[in-house]
Amino acid sequence: MMTDLWLIGMGTGSPAHVTLEGMQALRDAAVILLPLKGESKEELAALRYAILHAANTSAEIRTFDYPLRDPALPYADRVRVWHDAIAARWMDALGADAPRGPVALLVWGDPSLYDSTLRIARRLIPPPTLRVVPGITAVQALTAAHAIPLSTLNGPVRITTGRQLRAGGWPDDPRDPDCKDTLVVMLDSDCSFRALDPVGLHIWWGAHLGSPAQVLRAGPVAEVADDIVATRADSRARAGWIMDTYLLRRRSPPTR
Amino acid sequence: MMTDLWLIGMGTGSPAHVTLEGMQALRDAAVILLPLKGESKEELAALRYAILHAANTSAEIRTFDYPLRDPALPYADRVRVWHDAIAARWMDALGADAPRGPVALLVWGDPSLYDSTLRIARRLIPPPTLRVVPGITAVQALTAAHAIPLSTLNGPVRITTGRQLRAGGWPDDPRDPDCKDTLVVMLDSDCSFRALDPVGLHIWWGAHLGSPAQVLRAGPVAEVADDIVATRADSRARAGWIMDTYLLRRRSPPTR
Ligand SMILES: C[S@@+](CC[C@H](N)C(=O)[O-])C[C@H]1O[C@@H](n2cnc3c(N)ncnc32)[C@H](O)[C@@H]1O
Ligand SMILES: C[S@@+](CC[C@H](N)C(=O)[O-])C[C@H]1O[C@@H](n2cnc3c(N)ncnc32)[C@H](O)[C@@H]1O
Repeated sequence: MMTDLWLIGMGTGSPAHVTLEGMQALRDAAVILLPLKGESKEELAALRYAILHAANTSAEIRTFDYPLRDPALPYADRVRVWHDAIAARWMDALGADAPRGPVALLVWGDPSLYDSTLRIARRLIPPPTLRVVPGITAVQALTAAHAIPLSTLNGPVRITTGRQLRAGGWPDDPRDPDCKDTLVVMLDSDCSFRALDPVGLHIWWGAHLGSPAQVLRAGPVAEVADDIVATRADSRARAGWIMDTYLLRRRSPPTR
Repeated sequence: MMTDLWLIGMGTGSPAHVTLEGMQALRDAAVILLPLKGESKEELAALRYAILHAANTSAEIRTFDYPLRDPALPYADRVRVWHDAIAARWMDALGADAPRGPVALLVWGDPSLYDSTLRIARRLIPPPTLRVVPGITAVQALTAAHAIPLSTLNGPVRITTGRQLRAGGWPDDPRDPDCKDTLVVMLDSDCSFRALDPVGLHIWWGAHLGSPAQVLRAGPVAEVADDIVATRADSRARAGWIMDTYLLRRRSPPTR
């Protein structure tokens, strides 16, 4: 029986991204569920181990492998069935012999942002008490690495996905011209910024943020787009995988 | 001469929000600039001291008071003049006798989000090398406290201010109907969600997030709006000040 499930944001590439609260939660947990195959690249598994080592936790570690998705199912069903299967893997990994007490999971970045762990946790029956420990997101790792503000003075910020950007283009809401100030794009395997009109558009791009392989580019889209595409391909070839995020602004960089 | 300036995100109310990187930076700094009067309530100054204590830093602490804003100036000028005055206070606090080495400032939440410290830092002449250490934002403290996702599956998220919400209403972009999925509102002293059509609208609200005085409310806006307004007034009267943040969603809560 899992009575308490803790989702601990682990940040996006550096063990030093974890908060004091996250470290303490890893020590207070009775069991830590650790994904091995499926979701994770080897580096990511190594990063999880580095965090557990730094936390110096005596919690019992139970590993699980992510199930495969069923490509035959339509998207919504595929996601639902997959989430059920992950929840089942968690319970299998715990088994009947797991120590009693809080179960912890390290979640990439912050558990609230483009991550399914919370939704999977909500499928557990009986429902455990959920605790979420926030973690540094890729958005914050990006703005910190470039030392830029996310928001202009009182301006709104939109965080979106590559798919949304390709489908909807730059969001122009005539009733809210400021909507176009700042756009952050995640989950984009296509450098979708190339689909936008580059006039007046600035980009701040980063891949492998927070990790030693971190790479950054910034400038007018018209000038740096090709370099970003090439750098991304190169960085991906080196590591075998890549995660990248970028911020777009229509106006010149508001440095003051 | 300030050669290196480090802006360290301190989270939004708990010393345990600080990351390992933030703690290490406080130890590696030669001088820490600490605001006393003006910006900060007493509790906030106490929180900064609690963090410095937890970091066990031997950096020299230099305090400064925030200047007053000139109400006679138009908004943009007022901000610019005020930022210049703050930068001058930093330099005064350092004086000629400060130890050489990196200067650190603790910034509420994350330095990228609705905060001027980065913009002020960019006014310094000669420009120091800037380093930003990310911190937990009020947005993350909110979603963690409610154990809810910020983003729906692949859906965009908009972060905005009370003023923008009152001026523009709910952002309805016909070319991008998903834009209305999730709205996070900060810097709102007016419970501006009351200006929106409440039909189908859900709210997750939190004040004093991360601190012992944290208070949360959630539900359909039509049902909980009055309670939030009353709770906010009460919580503000108790503490003498308040900071609150909320998340709005048009659809029923996507718990699965
Ligand atoms: C499934 S989402 C998870 C986001 C995570 N929960 C967070 O808070 O950042 C994965 C996306 O996050 C971004 N991302 C995550 N880690 C990153 C990193 N280290 N560098 C650049 N982008 C990253 C990329 O846009 C990637 O496609
Ligand atoms: C000037 S902004 C600073 C935001 C900060 N840099 C961050 O990352 O959260 C202040 C606004 O942040 C939100 N906020 C900050 N701390 C908060 C807290 N502890 N509880 C609720 N809202 C908070 C409120 O909306 C407040 O009006």
